[in-house]
Amino acid sequence: MQVIRSIKEMQQMAKELHREGNRIGYVPTMGFLHEGHLTLINEAKKNNDKVVISIFVNPLQFGPNEDFDAYPRDIERDETLANNAGVDFIFYPEVGEMYPVDLSTKINVTKRVNVLCGKSREGHFDGVATVLMKLFNIIMPDRAYFGLKDAQQVAVVDGLINDYNIPVELVAVGTVREEDGLAKSSRNVYLTEQERSVAPELYRSLQKAVQRILDGEKNLDQVKTEVINAVHEKTSGIIDYVEIYSYPDLVELNEPNGKMIIALAVKFSKARLIDNITFSI
Amino acid sequence: MQVIRSIKEMQQMAKELHREGNRIGYVPTMGFLHEGHLTLINEAKKNNDKVVISIFVNPLQFGPNEDFDAYPRDIERDETLANNAGVDFIFYPEVGEMYPVDLSTKINVTKRVNVLCGKSREGHFDGVATVLMKLFNIIMPDRAYFGLKDAQQVAVVDGLINDYNIPVELVAVGTVREEDGLAKSSRNVYLTEQERSVAPELYRSLQKAVQRILDGEKNLDQVKTEVINAVHEKTSGIIDYVEIYSYPDLVELNEPNGKMIIALAVKFSKARLIDNITFSI
Repeated sequence: MQVIRSIKEMQQMAKELHREGNRIGYVPTMGFLHEGHLTLINEAKKNNDKVVISIFVNPLQFGPNEDFDAYPRDIERDETLANNAGVDFIFYPEVGEMYPVDLSTKINVTKRVNVLCGKSREGHFDGVATVLMKLFNIIMPDRAYFGLKDAQQVAVVDGLINDYNIPVELVAVGTVREEDGLAKSSRNVYLTEQERSVAPELYRSLQKAVQRILDGEKNLDQVKTEVINAVHEKTSGIIDYVEIYSYPDLVELNEPNGKMIIALAVKFSKARLIDNITFSI
Repeated sequence: MQVIRSIKEMQQMAKELHREGNRIGYVPTMGFLHEGHLTLINEAKKNNDKVVISIFVNPLQFGPNEDFDAYPRDIERDETLANNAGVDFIFYPEVGEMYPVDLSTKINVTKRVNVLCGKSREGHFDGVATVLMKLFNIIMPDRAYFGLKDAQQVAVVDGLINDYNIPVELVAVGTVREEDGLAKSSRNVYLTEQERSVAPELYRSLQKAVQRILDGEKNLDQVKTEVINAVHEKTSGIIDYVEIYSYPDLVELNEPNGKMIIALAVKFSKARLIDNITFSI
């Protein structure tokens, strides 16, 4: 495994890999790797000749109230984990390498953002789109891997790739879950024992909602209310949102139609959990 | 020479060309090819294995008062000219191929635009940046050729390429001139005989201004005034602007410093002419 810190070197390596006929699988990360990242890396290993991950805590996607400096970093641990997972290259640039001068342009994500978690994170996805546009040009992947746990991010990246004909295949990887169905998250450790025991109810209530729609329920407000009631009855969590949208457009629906997402965010005493299911009728 | 109308086909061809070890030189055009384009094509021929031009009248870069529909088009003539010039591929997509659905993002050019001709063409360079981001991803050139006649466009493209680490080398090609120094332009035919005879004074006054600065003149307002006076004395043209900026940043200067541009726009009875010189002290 090789760690590359310079953009130019990474681009030259990417070109060389392509010239040699390699397919490049790419997993963008902000480091502090967890099981979710490793799942993406494993998927990338399956279908590509070389796997590149980037480790870059991108200042542009942090809001004024989100602490860029406090974001956890541990490059040595990350290198060990990546190496063990079979990663071929880590692209690990400094902030000054990625943003040496003020940008002369801005990418503004205008659709798919003012819903779900994006509603309360103004500008977040502009920062995500900007850094990904750069990283795609630097790493030149054939396929890029994103987790469906953050389905809104997948939708925004899908829009970005389509808008600019970026020659990369977006691979959306299903959420990894504990045995009882709870979506894996580094935040789960902040749950109390009692909260943890009932937390799988989030996923169960989403599954039930999907089944209700597949069974023919047309009233989406009714379905959402049922999810809200189930979560409130069976957990101490406070609902932040329960929403059903078209996917990946993330547009409100009058009734079930085509590909959809049902997503929720629930606040517990010390952790805010999110989960979602994408499905089609 | 091959004409390609589909994005997917163009991308596959570009990948294949790269796999075979070809360097791709690229000239973006809106068609209705003239000598300026042919100069860019000739430059591209010199240093690349394959030359691709695009012909696409991009609706996004036309303002509400600029007539997209009336823009001249003649694909048969263009094909003949391109073929004779040794072009290998014309990428010639329909509008619906390039913009099949509303974009979910916007590129906003925030620097280098509110000066020179950009001042009166709000949003123009946003459209240019958007279509070029797409075209670079579709044609995957090693080098892209732009004429310095539109030095502001070159500056904006330079910013775009740097901002997003686009793996393409920008080649800025010097303005092609008539024997008497007048910058070649399809608009020159709209000059009256009298206007045409004195029009070379535009370039001459710019040359004199550059020489004044190289000779040590520090007062840029003074230099600009001299250009204005010379043009007014020797032609019937009305000055739209005479400006001196840093280049390619296009920032106002207190005194001469580093790489600069002196540029002017002058209105004649039926034609508005532009010209510029980039130079360094």
